[in-house]
Amino acid sequence: MQRLNGKETAHQIRKELQEKVSTRKEMGKKTPHLAAVLVGSDGGSLSYVTAKVKACEEIGFDSTLIRFDSDVSEDTLLNQVTKLNDDPNIDGFIVQLPLPKHINETKVTDTISPNKDVDGFHPMNLGNMMLNLPGFLPATPAGIIELMRRYKIETSGKHCVIIGRSNIVGTPLSMMLSRNTNPGNCTVTLAHSRTKNLKELCLQADILIAAIGKPDFVTSEMVKDGAVIIDVGTTRVEDTSRERGWRLVGDVNFKEVAPKSSFITPVPGGVGPMTIASLMINTLKAMELNGK
Amino acid sequence: MQRLNGKETAHQIRKELQEKVSTRKEMGKKTPHLAAVLVGSDGGSLSYVTAKVKACEEIGFDSTLIRFDSDVSEDTLLNQVTKLNDDPNIDGFIVQLPLPKHINETKVTDTISPNKDVDGFHPMNLGNMMLNLPGFLPATPAGIIELMRRYKIETSGKHCVIIGRSNIVGTPLSMMLSRNTNPGNCTVTLAHSRTKNLKELCLQADILIAAIGKPDFVTSEMVKDGAVIIDVGTTRVEDTSRERGWRLVGDVNFKEVAPKSSFITPVPGGVGPMTIASLMINTLKAMELNGK
Repeated sequence: MQRLNGKETAHQIRKELQEKVSTRKEMGKKTPHLAAVLVGSDGGSLSYVTAKVKACEEIGFDSTLIRFDSDVSEDTLLNQVTKLNDDPNIDGFIVQLPLPKHINETKVTDTISPNKDVDGFHPMNLGNMMLNLPGFLPATPAGIIELMRRYKIETSGKHCVIIGRSNIVGTPLSMMLSRNTNPGNCTVTLAHSRTKNLKELCLQADILIAAIGKPDFVTSEMVKDGAVIIDVGTTRVEDTSRERGWRLVGDVNFKEVAPKSSFITPVPGGVGPMTIASLMINTLKAMELNGK
Repeated sequence: MQRLNGKETAHQIRKELQEKVSTRKEMGKKTPHLAAVLVGSDGGSLSYVTAKVKACEEIGFDSTLIRFDSDVSEDTLLNQVTKLNDDPNIDGFIVQLPLPKHINETKVTDTISPNKDVDGFHPMNLGNMMLNLPGFLPATPAGIIELMRRYKIETSGKHCVIIGRSNIVGTPLSMMLSRNTNPGNCTVTLAHSRTKNLKELCLQADILIAAIGKPDFVTSEMVKDGAVIIDVGTTRVEDTSRERGWRLVGDVNFKEVAPKSSFITPVPGGVGPMTIASLMINTLKAMELNGK
């Protein structure tokens, strides 16, 4: 069993990006600039956005954090998005989800220019992904693919079972892994809440990916010997022994499953750090695609 | 075993559309207008386009066929697309694929306004489909779904194995069947040329869909008793006993497989006619979406 160390890999990616940016700067080229829009003060969202801004600083990207109160109007938010679309200094930007209920998330996502949509949530980017055309790949699935690539995990012809059909992880990942690319060329089964015989399905998986947000859902009797296990779950579970009062728990019962696996991502330190690394990769790409 | 009679179902859909159009006309509303662009004189493409135009006439839609020689320049074709985008009289249009090699198909497809893309090939429409948002669904997958709906085939929780990952059938269909819709909510496995143990996989399928274009590829030993079989293949095979010299052969060995199945589409007369019916449904929808 080998751990897929996302933390270390993300660190390596940041170092590589840092070098690229510093070379660009020496050549008098533009510094990549990521903007992040945060509405309200939800603890989870704030800490995600803060981590993204911090990653920018570490690499040498410029970053701008734009905050609104949770009662901001949809119009004001859409105006801000349009401003960022039009700002030649901003290469890419994200609007941290979820948004308050009075704001139409789809409307906001659709208003972001596909050329600056470094989260890869715009329908245009998802459609291009499906067609294997250039565009921005959604950050978490792209991070998982990059982790597999760097650990040289063989995917061609492997049976990959993905549990969870969310728009930001399971569904796009099923597309990316089934395309004729490397990593890719998997036979992909997309399972979800309506799936019957989930255990039998999972037992067939050479690569098992869990993305449902149910702590310790995948147990050892669901896993084939030697399978690759990717755990996308990050649920906050109360833990009074920690100063902050909680710890992150994945969808996979690591203790039970790890001994049976060939490769496995821990939580935390597996998929999570790769998401931010993907966002940074996308930001540099946005600048290059826009010819700067 | 029951045949899924696509010919009859498509006929029924045309009748329903006919009534809708005639009611619209009585109310003084616009008549739906589909344009089709055909480049060159390939026999297959010509007969597909002719069938589409004929379906329009039968229903009472207006139709326009625009033909170019196979040496038309990309610019001329793109100009034609832009003209159709801007023409308020045209509700939807298609550019029949494949195009000659000197023309970039992606560029042409991307230039079509997503609001008039009744073939559902534009990345924006594919992305919206993935997100379960409104848009045009690709005609063949949408036709298959409609056929299942009208025959009241239970899909929720069923294991659906799709053979073939093409951009116009297998891949979008895998999305549509795995979404939380009805028909839908299947556990979907997308298989392709790199898949190992295809026979064992297919034997697990409650619903088996073949879309690879290999005559008689699916044989009885690949099929579970009582499975639903959808055959998307239409390969022209030489047949000197017929006046035209060929016959259409599906991906499924009908004679062997039919007795084991609960429902099965014949070739011809199964999925094929449903594709044109979907195109007609999309054209009416285009007009309504554009507020006419």
